[in-house]
Amino acid sequence: MSGTDASRSITLENHLPLDSGQVLLHATIAYETYGDLDADKGNAVLICHALTGDQYVASNHPITGKPGWWERMVGPGKPIDTNKFHVICANVIGSCMGSTGPASLADDGEPYALRFPVITIRDMARCLVALVDALGIDRLHTVVGGSMGGMQALSLAANWPDRAARILAIATAARHSAQNIAFHEVGRQAIMADPNWDDGNYYGGQTPDAGLAVARMAAHITYLSETGLTDKFGRRLQDRNTKSFGIDADFQVVSYLRYQGSGFTQRFDANSYLYITRAMDYFDLAEEHGGRLGDAFSGHEMGKGARFCLISFDSDWLYPTAESRHVVHALNSVGAPVSFVELSAPFGHDSFLLEVPSLDRVVEGFLNG
Amino acid sequence: MSGTDASRSITLENHLPLDSGQVLLHATIAYETYGDLDADKGNAVLICHALTGDQYVASNHPITGKPGWWERMVGPGKPIDTNKFHVICANVIGSCMGSTGPASLADDGEPYALRFPVITIRDMARCLVALVDALGIDRLHTVVGGSMGGMQALSLAANWPDRAARILAIATAARHSAQNIAFHEVGRQAIMADPNWDDGNYYGGQTPDAGLAVARMAAHITYLSETGLTDKFGRRLQDRNTKSFGIDADFQVVSYLRYQGSGFTQRFDANSYLYITRAMDYFDLAEEHGGRLGDAFSGHEMGKGARFCLISFDSDWLYPTAESRHVVHALNSVGAPVSFVELSAPFGHDSFLLEVPSLDRVVEGFLNG
Repeated sequence: MSGTDASRSITLENHLPLDSGQVLLHATIAYETYGDLDADKGNAVLICHALTGDQYVASNHPITGKPGWWERMVGPGKPIDTNKFHVICANVIGSCMGSTGPASLADDGEPYALRFPVITIRDMARCLVALVDALGIDRLHTVVGGSMGGMQALSLAANWPDRAARILAIATAARHSAQNIAFHEVGRQAIMADPNWDDGNYYGGQTPDAGLAVARMAAHITYLSETGLTDKFGRRLQDRNTKSFGIDADFQVVSYLRYQGSGFTQRFDANSYLYITRAMDYFDLAEEHGGRLGDAFSGHEMGKGARFCLISFDSDWLYPTAESRHVVHALNSVGAPVSFVELSAPFGHDSFLLEVPSLDRVVEGFLNG
Repeated sequence: MSGTDASRSITLENHLPLDSGQVLLHATIAYETYGDLDADKGNAVLICHALTGDQYVASNHPITGKPGWWERMVGPGKPIDTNKFHVICANVIGSCMGSTGPASLADDGEPYALRFPVITIRDMARCLVALVDALGIDRLHTVVGGSMGGMQALSLAANWPDRAARILAIATAARHSAQNIAFHEVGRQAIMADPNWDDGNYYGGQTPDAGLAVARMAAHITYLSETGLTDKFGRRLQDRNTKSFGIDADFQVVSYLRYQGSGFTQRFDANSYLYITRAMDYFDLAEEHGGRLGDAFSGHEMGKGARFCLISFDSDWLYPTAESRHVVHALNSVGAPVSFVELSAPFGHDSFLLEVPSLDRVVEGFLNG
């Protein structure tokens, strides 16, 4: 059960019921693990990934060859110490790194494409619980996630309150705001405007890379802070001393965005982007539980459930601190034990992925407290 | 000279030298006027429009039939009172409402398309000065502009310091930030990714409406505040009570954005969008004047030039108050008379176009003070 093993997956024997009322037949869940599982199975930490993330949290990505997306946080001697903990990270359904998604083959041997059912964050969490079931783990030591990963952690806590002892939700929210929905819509429209998208039926042909790259660029800006962008790029020119007065990328920030956009298309499926952004837009934990967010956490009343930790970043304008505080107040209202900290970091929403030593300390402290 | 006259324009006899080193041959400048010009020509107010604006500041748009974009501010008895002032508003070069731009015919009888030279904010201001020359006005009573219009007002003040007695710059900046450049790049990439764009040679054929609509949607989000979006739309669903779990626009904010995007394509040229956003990205008034912003305003030292008024809005995250303050400090450094106010308004950057009574009072006060 070490991280050097090949990619692994389970395929569910039962149909997976979905929030839409549809079912997902024989869903496959691809996952990675790092560190040994104790005999009592009490040291399992489930990490939930963000929109464009994957299960390769602390091992090289098989397509890009790049290091895992959270290697600075997860590994031997790291804040989530794989010498102590058995870390599990699964690709969400709807994605494209081995778990069932729109690019997967349906029963007729053709890719689902838009026949794939619309999924929700709770459906993703439902799959994670099915995986944990299959691994024979009754109660996770901790569920951790940033951004959409935090949504899954909160959804798992709300809907399966006895399956985790600790919930660590970073840079996230209990619902997607109008502005966040709006930014997602820009990305979706960019993809669907690409003629290669072809109503989602592009598998085996030209993929809608241009549209997907624009979607990634738009999203990427929202992941960074204005200050971070200014510090990193300012108005500096790219590989030249004077403006070109041409159509080329004059500014470094433009070259960087184009690079981000084109790199993304090599590893991500455009239809997955449509489905997963929709799942995030639909996320509203209060609405799912009758309209009051506190009721979502009734399984954690008076400390009978999990301990929670919420972390936000002062430069994150996509999931600002107020969203985390909203969750904290809901947990307070049911008497659930919760700690909360707003960390100062210059990187905007992406702070949870980057070099923020104070984050390391809070994560390590919460897992070992 | 009343606003009920038909659209008018002048064509420059001389070549217009551009910052790029190129020249624009026989540029046409389309403009509208409202209110009578005094015999001494001392009551002329020049209004500069924003990125997607036009000369129809207080009269119906000839394509959409909608009221002028600033009718709440400009007209008889309005804060910019056309019973008192002779208001001039010209379409910027590079645009598409009558002034020379990429859709205009070059000498060979074909549209310029990408043969149109790259222009700058100073080039726009240069054209405005040429128009004012042609109208025989030595010194404008006031130059007013919001957003990119404010950039033109500041550029005109910096480069032609004796041509206006008052400069009123609203919700603007002396330079375009890295974040602003990044958002513009998303729009440009969306346009250029549209196969109908065809390297700009789409005139007479299918226009790149899908790409231009995405560009508009992305930009539109930046014009609004998060709070404004939440107040206006929140997470409300469009024409339904429950989520569709389909590919339709479930949320009102999504329907609104799609409407904004598709409406825009009827009145705006995609190549103009590329050129004008580039002009804004290039804008850096300090850089134009040796690196120190105060030096840009040396023509206004110790009150020998114009009086300035800067206005920002507390919910504007595209051109935040700090950008206006930066201009104010530069004006202070040369002893130019300047007043500055940050107004509280919930609408984000678009506040300058919307119902903000405190803005009306400041504008009226400055013009009549």
